[in-house]
Amino acid sequence: MAVDGAETEFGRPVVTVDVVIFTLGAAGLEVLVLQRDAEPQADRWALPGGFVHIDEDADLEAASRRVLTAKTGIATPYLEQLQAFGDPARDPRGWSVSIGYMALLSHKATAPHPGRMAWIAADGATGLAFDHDRILAAAIMRLRNKVEYTTLPAHLLPDKFTLPYLQRVYERILGRALDKSAFRKRIAEADFLEPVPGEKRPASNRPAQLYRLKARATPVFFNRTL
Amino acid sequence: MAVDGAETEFGRPVVTVDVVIFTLGAAGLEVLVLQRDAEPQADRWALPGGFVHIDEDADLEAASRRVLTAKTGIATPYLEQLQAFGDPARDPRGWSVSIGYMALLSHKATAPHPGRMAWIAADGATGLAFDHDRILAAAIMRLRNKVEYTTLPAHLLPDKFTLPYLQRVYERILGRALDKSAFRKRIAEADFLEPVPGEKRPASNRPAQLYRLKARATPVFFNRTL
Repeated sequence: MAVDGAETEFGRPVVTVDVVIFTLGAAGLEVLVLQRDAEPQADRWALPGGFVHIDEDADLEAASRRVLTAKTGIATPYLEQLQAFGDPARDPRGWSVSIGYMALLSHKATAPHPGRMAWIAADGATGLAFDHDRILAAAIMRLRNKVEYTTLPAHLLPDKFTLPYLQRVYERILGRALDKSAFRKRIAEADFLEPVPGEKRPASNRPAQLYRLKARATPVFFNRTL
Repeated sequence: MAVDGAETEFGRPVVTVDVVIFTLGAAGLEVLVLQRDAEPQADRWALPGGFVHIDEDADLEAASRRVLTAKTGIATPYLEQLQAFGDPARDPRGWSVSIGYMALLSHKATAPHPGRMAWIAADGATGLAFDHDRILAAAIMRLRNKVEYTTLPAHLLPDKFTLPYLQRVYERILGRALDKSAFRKRIAEADFLEPVPGEKRPASNRPAQLYRLKARATPVFFNRTL
């Protein structure tokens, strides 16, 4: 914090939050975008975002959850802060800071309404409003890095899933095949799944056990990268 | 970003940057703190920090570098953003956002001036002003995590160093011994060091080669954790 009271005379930046919500869809990793209905940058597609409201937000994460729900109807179980972006040029309204968040959703938890809201392929997405291309790129990088050494992708899954399905999700995000036994070892060591009692899904020759997350909590780190 | 122009009517948070600067000293990992000379929280010890100046800062990192140099005389070669902290209670001046940064210094690059500036052991440090205990804790966690899988600790070293010294620095931060051959393998794979031509440091029985960073750039990720 600054020492001089005089420094409070300087103007304050605009402060917003922007949320990158990922899910797995037909196009692989997908991200939710909204078409802006007002200036600046009206009609352009943007990440869901909005101003921090100092009269109601308990903290930055609460601001993100409020904005996300207000703009998309989505309440996300998993949210993590990416980083803050701030400079004089990223928003025409002046020096602004946006705190970027990343949210993960299993597909069925999503509720897009038609027209001005769309899930698009995350990898090819460019031309978003403001500096949202950059925020999206940071989110993709964070997700890919974490996939290598955490249980984070499990938060993209439905409530119940098989281990082969979990492995396919990892492979899909990483874009490469993983060794099955090494993968199973990391997953077992991380100790974040539990079998769903009495639930097996029919597979080719024997039914596959269904699993669920022990808790919708913080991702667990692997002992080694995949 | 928000859609409604009306939302700009809401008050804006105070926006500051705070910098956690680490070095390795006699007490192990040490952090630089300053005694505040004005309210709020006059006389308490705090991380170097200050307001973002919208009339001069090119971005948040530039704001951190400006604040750090102005308050401590230190220009840091390595700086990375930690995260943003924001809520109504962390600063008595109202709803505020601080973007925390972590800087790493080799000890000789430091220039503390006496009296109101001190290097203290990072691990035991509590009772700092505002929520700086929390920002410091986040920095320690980030550093420890990155030590496991990146070349980051090399930025705590002097310009020239031996591989045994580098390993001791890793061990000191991690608080555990590392296998020498596995450590050398990760370091070689990361390919971020080069021998200093003609420079060897006398060791017990044979002179040890001195190394330096190939570039004072971004830390390199290991293929596997240590």
